[in-house]
Amino acid sequence: MARLTMDDVESLRAESEPMLMDIATYSLSDSYKSQHCNKKPQSKSMVDHFSIEASNFRGSALKRTAKQHFKSRLIPLGIGRPIDDFYPWESIALKESFTLPQSSHTIGLNPNVNTIAKRQGLFNLSTGLNYSHSVGQQPLLRFITEHVEIIHNPPYRDWSVCLTCGSTSALEIALRMFCNRGNAVLTEEYTYPGFISSTQLLGVQTVGIRMDDNGLIPEELARTLRTWDDSTGSRPRVLYTIPSGQNPTGITQSLERKKAIYQVAEEYDLIIIEDDPYYFLQATHQTMPNTNAIESYISHLPPTFLPLDHSSRVIRLDSTSKILASGLRAGWVTSSNEIIEKFISYQEVGPLAMSGPTQLMLWNLLDAKWGHRGFMAWLEHLSRQYRARLDIVLEACEKYLPKDVCSWKPPDCGMFLWIQVAVEKHSEFRESGFKVADVEERIWSRACENGVQVTKGSLFNAAASRPSRVSFRLTYAAADEDELDKGVKLFANAVREEVGLERVE
Amino acid sequence: MARLTMDDVESLRAESEPMLMDIATYSLSDSYKSQHCNKKPQSKSMVDHFSIEASNFRGSALKRTAKQHFKSRLIPLGIGRPIDDFYPWESIALKESFTLPQSSHTIGLNPNVNTIAKRQGLFNLSTGLNYSHSVGQQPLLRFITEHVEIIHNPPYRDWSVCLTCGSTSALEIALRMFCNRGNAVLTEEYTYPGFISSTQLLGVQTVGIRMDDNGLIPEELARTLRTWDDSTGSRPRVLYTIPSGQNPTGITQSLERKKAIYQVAEEYDLIIIEDDPYYFLQATHQTMPNTNAIESYISHLPPTFLPLDHSSRVIRLDSTSKILASGLRAGWVTSSNEIIEKFISYQEVGPLAMSGPTQLMLWNLLDAKWGHRGFMAWLEHLSRQYRARLDIVLEACEKYLPKDVCSWKPPDCGMFLWIQVAVEKHSEFRESGFKVADVEERIWSRACENGVQVTKGSLFNAAASRPSRVSFRLTYAAADEDELDKGVKLFANAVREEVGLERVE
Repeated sequence: MARLTMDDVESLRAESEPMLMDIATYSLSDSYKSQHCNKKPQSKSMVDHFSIEASNFRGSALKRTAKQHFKSRLIPLGIGRPIDDFYPWESIALKESFTLPQSSHTIGLNPNVNTIAKRQGLFNLSTGLNYSHSVGQQPLLRFITEHVEIIHNPPYRDWSVCLTCGSTSALEIALRMFCNRGNAVLTEEYTYPGFISSTQLLGVQTVGIRMDDNGLIPEELARTLRTWDDSTGSRPRVLYTIPSGQNPTGITQSLERKKAIYQVAEEYDLIIIEDDPYYFLQATHQTMPNTNAIESYISHLPPTFLPLDHSSRVIRLDSTSKILASGLRAGWVTSSNEIIEKFISYQEVGPLAMSGPTQLMLWNLLDAKWGHRGFMAWLEHLSRQYRARLDIVLEACEKYLPKDVCSWKPPDCGMFLWIQVAVEKHSEFRESGFKVADVEERIWSRACENGVQVTKGSLFNAAASRPSRVSFRLTYAAADEDELDKGVKLFANAVREEVGLERVE
Repeated sequence: MARLTMDDVESLRAESEPMLMDIATYSLSDSYKSQHCNKKPQSKSMVDHFSIEASNFRGSALKRTAKQHFKSRLIPLGIGRPIDDFYPWESIALKESFTLPQSSHTIGLNPNVNTIAKRQGLFNLSTGLNYSHSVGQQPLLRFITEHVEIIHNPPYRDWSVCLTCGSTSALEIALRMFCNRGNAVLTEEYTYPGFISSTQLLGVQTVGIRMDDNGLIPEELARTLRTWDDSTGSRPRVLYTIPSGQNPTGITQSLERKKAIYQVAEEYDLIIIEDDPYYFLQATHQTMPNTNAIESYISHLPPTFLPLDHSSRVIRLDSTSKILASGLRAGWVTSSNEIIEKFISYQEVGPLAMSGPTQLMLWNLLDAKWGHRGFMAWLEHLSRQYRARLDIVLEACEKYLPKDVCSWKPPDCGMFLWIQVAVEKHSEFRESGFKVADVEERIWSRACENGVQVTKGSLFNAAASRPSRVSFRLTYAAADEDELDKGVKLFANAVREEVGLERVE
């Protein structure tokens, strides 16, 4: 089926209505989607999945007023938005550190404009430092909508995007939208601790599903749902999953795996919260012969849950934290209009909108300077950097870790290496009973004493029961490249000391 | 009692431990408070006021790990925070639009530094674009802590500050911390619609307390609590109030009024959520003879609830939205350590932290360029601008509004003028019954047709019952100064048409 590509964006924009940058102008993604979307079927309603809180809530009355359109400009004595004379900033100038490769040059709208002035240009301080609609300021929302269509292309017509204040915020909103206190949520057996914390706050139970080398096991998911004991609470209707470079295991679900999971989700009518911040950090990508690096990178990107989402049950969370900068507190959520509108209602009474300076920085970089091809060039570059770091870490693991007790699988994606430590295999532990938590704590403390910080596997444990194996998460994102080898060695020595092996030097 | 002043800040900082700008370094406000605080009594615990959700929640386990201090630097293979090579920005240069008056010059730390580089300087992109602790990045947290001590000086020892993602976000967190679904919250009879929306989402009832020209009436507050019918739900334990330039009425509580309200709060053991975004927009301030404008402005600032808070029951929300720029999504919350620590836990699983670009911009302006005196110079300047605008609007009201039906009180503070329209006084309405909502809608529509946008009073109605009077909120913050007179005239004509009076030209 025909779909939007990077090359079509210029003509798509040229054929669209001009963008009105009035403060009060409000638009969902629909204005920025290609005509290909109109040929797709309508989404399936998921309103019966909304929590009690979400069902009862219609959003902010004042914000609804602010969205009204008027034929001509009115003198604004209505909304308390100070005029731009009352912002003490005149301009923001941004200098980027990444030089686009030749193949991606001159595709941004205006690659030479470094300075965002108060009143000049499409998106300026006057708009950017004023209140933003929750959905996001239009020039950035347009870019992100195009990006989602180019990369993910959901198979139904009425999808849209809302800019978020980062995926931690978006995830909490998604959980509140679909879960009542006392409900249970399905997830990988090891998962993102921020998700676990959120569920604890909301009084929602997490149910960890076993994983193999391809991630969450669909048969285990189906079994859990099939054999659910209703006396322990109602059967879960939400699956939270991190499909690429999973945190903490580093595992990426294959396409077949995703399809099988989706099928279970359809059978048991689950909402899928797809949290995918590591998606673009592709470690195994290699540039194919006779192809340029960017095209090769894009063609290598695996399908996410969005293109598989024929029954519109996926709410996908993207984040800039791992691909641009975590301090931006920025991301976007993609789902059906019905779900996105509810999401916007929540955001309106909470964090409200992505911060203005962040929106300006992202727009200036992505839309004005880089364009879609430049963004992909950056992501390809970043993936190569991560690949080089991963290679160092894997080599160090081979050199230093005791292979009779440590096991790991090289990740295809992301920034995490998951190391399982089968201490029970080692003679010292054979006879005596031991507690996973104690061993984990001792290895972790030794690692700290040795001079390396790693993260205990138990922090990621989604099940109510204690983990049965000792494991650690190592990241190669945060250390200097020349510290990675040493870091792994110091960790390896902590393990070696624990199981009574000789240190490596 | 001796207290911190702007002149003491330099020596306070000089005597303090040097600031460690390690990513993982974590500090509450205590590090930045003056020794005067140590002489104050300890706060009173309010843990029994926490909601079920808040009581059960201990915060993010992963974040607790990240807060651990180690003696020496560890190789960071623990937390997935990408190194700064992976941010595509090299620098941000900021140009401000406000020239400090002579009297406030050279008091910022480094007034000439416009460019925030990646790795140079106390607070740079390397730190500022990385994850921030929820409480805020230290250089900005220090400035805000000093500011709170200089201006508000809470009377107990263990207060602290947490930077927020704006007061809408902070208010939702505060409500979740202190209210269970089904509870009721006390507030002014007309109040901020964002608060009403938040309570609707949370399933919390709002109880509007009658106001007079000094704001919420303490006797009415006491009466409501004394005569509370427990069969309708448990007696409210939270008061939400906007004490200065109240939204929408523009009313400012006098000091006597605040003391009386606080006394009722003590008697009935209420938490007070003090939402005070308009505090610094002082309309009635005039520079006193033989005093410089800044000193005069500061001495004119009325005490807030914080200095009255001897039983530590106040949680105060400040916002940059009305004094710097609303798009920053920035503010701060001040309360006892106990309450602030719970607040931080909520923020960690939600919006996480004020956006990095916003923190950098605020720090660069407030701390590096302006210093405390410069900040006050700006606020004094802003107050004068608002005063000039208010004068235009008041003059226009005198000229155009029909005084037999319209009444208003000039606000001392803020950006709102509240106009009550007693349509029933007018002959056309005397005999026939009329609905407030219908009349309000008709005047509002006519105003829009005439070319002016105002806000309907009913949007601010906190009571479950419909409002008994027609009223409108006008703001003088958003229009160009030369449109204000015309805007009021267009609104006046909408009222005049409704009650059958001749239009003014």
